[in-house]
Amino acid sequence: MNIAVAQSGGPTCAINASLAGVFSAGAKSEEIGIVYGSLNGIEGILEERLVDMSEYIKSDEDIRLLVRTPSAALGSCRRKLPEYEADKSVYEKITEVFRKYDIGMFFYIGGNDSMDTVAKLSKYYAENGIDIKVIGVPKTIDNDLCETDHCPGFGSAAKYVAATVQEITRDSNVYSAPSVTVIETMGRHAGWLTAAAACLKRNGESAPHLIYLPEIDFSAEKFIDDVKNEMQKHKAVIAVVSEGVKTADGKFAAEAYQSAKTDAFGHAYLSGVGKYLENLVSEKIGCKVRSIELNVMQRCSSHIASETDITESQAIGAAAVEAALKGETGCMMIFKRVSDNPYSMEIAAVPASLTANNEKFFPKEWINSECNGVTEEAIDYVMPLIQGELMPVMENGMVKHFII
Amino acid sequence: MNIAVAQSGGPTCAINASLAGVFSAGAKSEEIGIVYGSLNGIEGILEERLVDMSEYIKSDEDIRLLVRTPSAALGSCRRKLPEYEADKSVYEKITEVFRKYDIGMFFYIGGNDSMDTVAKLSKYYAENGIDIKVIGVPKTIDNDLCETDHCPGFGSAAKYVAATVQEITRDSNVYSAPSVTVIETMGRHAGWLTAAAACLKRNGESAPHLIYLPEIDFSAEKFIDDVKNEMQKHKAVIAVVSEGVKTADGKFAAEAYQSAKTDAFGHAYLSGVGKYLENLVSEKIGCKVRSIELNVMQRCSSHIASETDITESQAIGAAAVEAALKGETGCMMIFKRVSDNPYSMEIAAVPASLTANNEKFFPKEWINSECNGVTEEAIDYVMPLIQGELMPVMENGMVKHFII
Repeated sequence: MNIAVAQSGGPTCAINASLAGVFSAGAKSEEIGIVYGSLNGIEGILEERLVDMSEYIKSDEDIRLLVRTPSAALGSCRRKLPEYEADKSVYEKITEVFRKYDIGMFFYIGGNDSMDTVAKLSKYYAENGIDIKVIGVPKTIDNDLCETDHCPGFGSAAKYVAATVQEITRDSNVYSAPSVTVIETMGRHAGWLTAAAACLKRNGESAPHLIYLPEIDFSAEKFIDDVKNEMQKHKAVIAVVSEGVKTADGKFAAEAYQSAKTDAFGHAYLSGVGKYLENLVSEKIGCKVRSIELNVMQRCSSHIASETDITESQAIGAAAVEAALKGETGCMMIFKRVSDNPYSMEIAAVPASLTANNEKFFPKEWINSECNGVTEEAIDYVMPLIQGELMPVMENGMVKHFII
Repeated sequence: MNIAVAQSGGPTCAINASLAGVFSAGAKSEEIGIVYGSLNGIEGILEERLVDMSEYIKSDEDIRLLVRTPSAALGSCRRKLPEYEADKSVYEKITEVFRKYDIGMFFYIGGNDSMDTVAKLSKYYAENGIDIKVIGVPKTIDNDLCETDHCPGFGSAAKYVAATVQEITRDSNVYSAPSVTVIETMGRHAGWLTAAAACLKRNGESAPHLIYLPEIDFSAEKFIDDVKNEMQKHKAVIAVVSEGVKTADGKFAAEAYQSAKTDAFGHAYLSGVGKYLENLVSEKIGCKVRSIELNVMQRCSSHIASETDITESQAIGAAAVEAALKGETGCMMIFKRVSDNPYSMEIAAVPASLTANNEKFFPKEWINSECNGVTEEAIDYVMPLIQGELMPVMENGMVKHFII
C-alpha cells in the first residue's frame, strides 16, 4: 500500500515540518510503500500530479532542510469539494487516482477548508464501503481551528510577531518627539496572532501599549482616546491591530474610509486598517505617526521559527500516519495541552467534521476590561508555543530552502 | 580626559555595534577616563543629557547585548548645525558642555547629515585653536555615503532583504495561478539595498526577476512590459522596487498617482510605489497581484543581522577612538576593500567634508542593459557583506535587548 499527502490553504513556516513528519513515518512503516506528494493540494490528485517524495528526500539532511523551509513545498490550493450528493464525479475521480497509485491513506495538511475535504471524502468512503483512510493535519497561523489547543504554524508566526514588534519598538524610541506606531497583524477573524505581541510584557517591555482584536467591536473614537491616554505615559506609543477588526455594524474598520476613495483607475482603494488608523491619528492628534503591515512575513519568516512549533508540527504529521495505521479515518489530529508550566502536550484525533468550516475565536475573558489589551492568561497560553530557536540552514550568507 | 559619543539619523542594526566599539576602545585606553553617551545625538550635548556609559555597560555580556540590539541605544536626532559664521552660539554651547565634562574627543555615529556636523564642528575648533577632536563613524542602511566602500548597517539590511525576498518567493509559489509580487525596499535615492536582493541568484533562485533602482528613470509602461515578459517564464513573478524610483521628469513614480487621490480627510494619500505598481498590474494585466513593503524591518531586524556587518561596525567604532588618540580630527572613518574574494577590508580616515551632504549612487555600469536587474559585479560587491550569522541573545523565546 502507498500513501499520499497534500498541503492546502495559506502557507506557514510549519506546514513543511508536518509534511516531513508524514514522509518519515511513512518511510519507516513496513506496511507503507511509496509516499506520494500531491502538487497543489487536492488538485494534484485530480490532475494526477503526484511525485514520489523519496526522489526528493534522500537523507536526514534533506529532511532537516524541508523542516526549515517556509511555505508549502508541494504547493497549495483553495479548492473545496462539492457535496457528493450533488456531484459524485469529483469523488470518483479522486478514488480512481488513489486506486491507480494503490493509495490507501490520504493526509491533508490544511485549515478548516481542508478539514471540510477530509470530512466529505471520508464520509463518502464510509458510506460506500471503500477502505481508504483520510486524515487531516491542522495548520494555520490564524490559530482558529476548533478542537485543538493550538495550530501548527501559529507558534512560529507568534514568535515572528513578538520579535518584530520588539524590534520596531526599539526603532520607534530613537527620537525625542512623541510618536505613534500602528502595526497591522494577520489572523482573519480571530485575534490569536495579534494577542501574541503581548508576550513582550514577559521580557519587561511596556509595548505593545494597545492591542485590538477582531473579537471586540472596534471604535475609532475609543481608539483615539486610548492613544491620547497612552501618549501621556509613553513617548512612542505602539498599537497592534488585527487586520480583521470590525466596527459594531459588522463592517471592517477601514471599510467606510476605503469606500470614500478610489485610485487613479477608479478602483476602490484597498488599504488596510493600519494605514487607515495612521491617517486617523494624523488627523485627530497630529503627531508623528506611521503604520507597518507585517504582511506575509508573518507566515513565511522561517529564519525566526519557533522550535516548539516546528517540532510539534513534525510530530503531528507523523502521528497522523500512526493513527491511520491503527485504523483511524475521517479525523483531524489535534494538540491537547496537559499543562502550561511546565508545558506538556499530547496528540489526539477528533472527527474532522467538528472542525470543518468552523472558527475558534480568541476568548473574550482573555481581553482586558478596557478592550485594548489581553490578560496574563492569554500570555500564559502563547508563551510555551514560541519557545526555542532553530537556526535555518545557511548557504552563502543566505537561507537555504528545500524546493520540489 | 573624557570622551563623548552620540548617534544620529535613521537607526540601523549596526549602530549600537559601533557604539560598543567606541566604548570598549575608550574604556581600554589609559588616556581616556569616562565615556559619555549623549542622548538624542547632538541635542544631548546641547541639553546636557549625558550618561556615563560604564553605568550601563558593566560586563562583556552587556557589550554582547548592546552589539546585538537594533536601533540607537542613545536615541537619535535629525538636527543640523547652522553655519558658524551665521550663529556661533550653538558652537559655543557645545564647547561649553564639552569643557564642563572635560570631553576632549567627540564621536558622531551617523549618516551624511551627521558628517556635516563633524565637518563644521571640527572646522570651528581648527579655526579657533580649540583642541577637541571630532570624528565621524558612518552608518546607513542606504549605503550612500561617499568615500567608504560600504556603510555599517548596510550588510545587515541587505541580509534581511535577501532572506525575506527569498521567503516571500517561497510563499508566492504555492498556488498554481500566475501571480505578481511587488516588494518595496528602502534606500532613498540610492539603489544599493534594492540591488542586494539579487544575491539570491547565487543560491540558485530565479527570483527576483525584476529589480528597479532609483538611478534609472522609471517608466510604468516599461514596467508592465517587463512583467508581462517575465510572466511568460515564471509562474510567480517577483519584482523588487526601490522606494526612490522616479520617472524621467524627476517625480517619484507614485506621485502622479497619489496626487489624484485624497483620503477621507482630504489629505493627499501617500502610498508607496509598491502599492502603486500593485494597482497598475491589476489594471493593466489583471492577474493576481500583491505588494509588500519591507518597511522599517529592513533596518531593525537584528535577529538576522550579518556577522560581517556587525563585526566591522564594532571595529570601525574602535578605530575612530584609536584615530583620535593619534591626533586625527575632522574625519570620517571609512572601509577600504582590499579584495572581494577572499574578502579583505581595511579601515582608514578621510576628511568628513568629502562625505557631508553628499550621496554615493549605485553605479550605472552595474545595472543590466534592460535596466531591470543588476550585473554579477554588483552581486560580487554585496556578497561578502552579508556573510555570517549572529544568534541574537534570547530570553523566554524572545530577543533580549540592551536598553538605556
